[in-house]
Amino acid sequence: MTKQKGNLIVISGASGVGKSTVIAELLKKRNNICFSVSWTTRKPRDGEIHGINYFFASRNEFEHMIAEGEFLEHAEYVGNYYGTSKSQVMKRLEEGYDVLLDIEVEGAKQIRTNWNKAVFMFVIAPSFAELENRLRARQTDDDEKIKKRLARAKEEYKEIPAYDYIIVNDTVENAVKEIEAVLTAERCRKKERLHLMKEV
Amino acid sequence: MTKQKGNLIVISGASGVGKSTVIAELLKKRNNICFSVSWTTRKPRDGEIHGINYFFASRNEFEHMIAEGEFLEHAEYVGNYYGTSKSQVMKRLEEGYDVLLDIEVEGAKQIRTNWNKAVFMFVIAPSFAELENRLRARQTDDDEKIKKRLARAKEEYKEIPAYDYIIVNDTVENAVKEIEAVLTAERCRKKERLHLMKEV
Repeated sequence: MTKQKGNLIVISGASGVGKSTVIAELLKKRNNICFSVSWTTRKPRDGEIHGINYFFASRNEFEHMIAEGEFLEHAEYVGNYYGTSKSQVMKRLEEGYDVLLDIEVEGAKQIRTNWNKAVFMFVIAPSFAELENRLRARQTDDDEKIKKRLARAKEEYKEIPAYDYIIVNDTVENAVKEIEAVLTAERCRKKERLHLMKEV
Repeated sequence: MTKQKGNLIVISGASGVGKSTVIAELLKKRNNICFSVSWTTRKPRDGEIHGINYFFASRNEFEHMIAEGEFLEHAEYVGNYYGTSKSQVMKRLEEGYDVLLDIEVEGAKQIRTNWNKAVFMFVIAPSFAELENRLRARQTDDDEKIKKRLARAKEEYKEIPAYDYIIVNDTVENAVKEIEAVLTAERCRKKERLHLMKEV
């Protein structure tokens, strides 16, 4: 069987929904997937390694890469750039890996414009009440901040119609199972496998 | 969480590809799926039970059902009618089951016309040489008949572009895994889950 190219997988979800835990479990379980390491102009923190946590670049270098169209998506937060390298993603896809991007709804919009065949998933909590419970359980935010996060989540939820799949994170195990099913199913899509029909 | 309706699942594949074994395994493993029992005007064979193997009807009854638009798809083979009841399928879908139809490419075409949201899968062998091996291994057909089956398979393969997914039956286990992934993924589709967003 000819080697099958991977798919670009975009996962978004509200803060507090447990997306990072789900993604960590997914990467442990599945070996034909890799996580896309972002580029940033932020300074490395203690213990952060170039190529593992981020690819670190100067502002000049980053802006040069933007000008060259090197990014599938990029954004500026609190004075620092963050972006996803198109050539790195393409290399991995060619090697047969699914490439996973954990990005917000704005980044996902850029991917929709710059890339024509990504799979878009949005991770939700079973309910908004449950999302609030999870944010409170983290004990990292005060009431004010939790309200802001919930308000932002409601805004982000409005973008869901642009996504292909909704993953319900009721338990990590179930959410991982759903994402794995989507990854496998997307590789069974007719257009991904028509090369198998060449002999006919 | 509101109960989710099931999906109508159409599975086609060339004779000899091992589709029946795959479907039998799938039905054993998964409990939210049921197999659609066809109606027929063929006489029951020894041991066949009405409602289990087929629903048996007279030619008159069957033609009345055709006239009433009772069938999602129907066909006549060797002087007997075979068909899938629309109301039975709808009842099961409403109950939350995925309903599985094992039908040929012509029946699948009718489903595409008469139903707007089925999932279409086509089961193939890893190669045409392997399909031929499997037909020979059954030892039920002579050379002439095997050639005819392969020629017919080639014709059927031309319909694959109208299907959503291609399932490769290299091993029964893998094929079942792929079909299960598709069933789970289709239940994660945004349009199937937008009701979860009502509260936003």
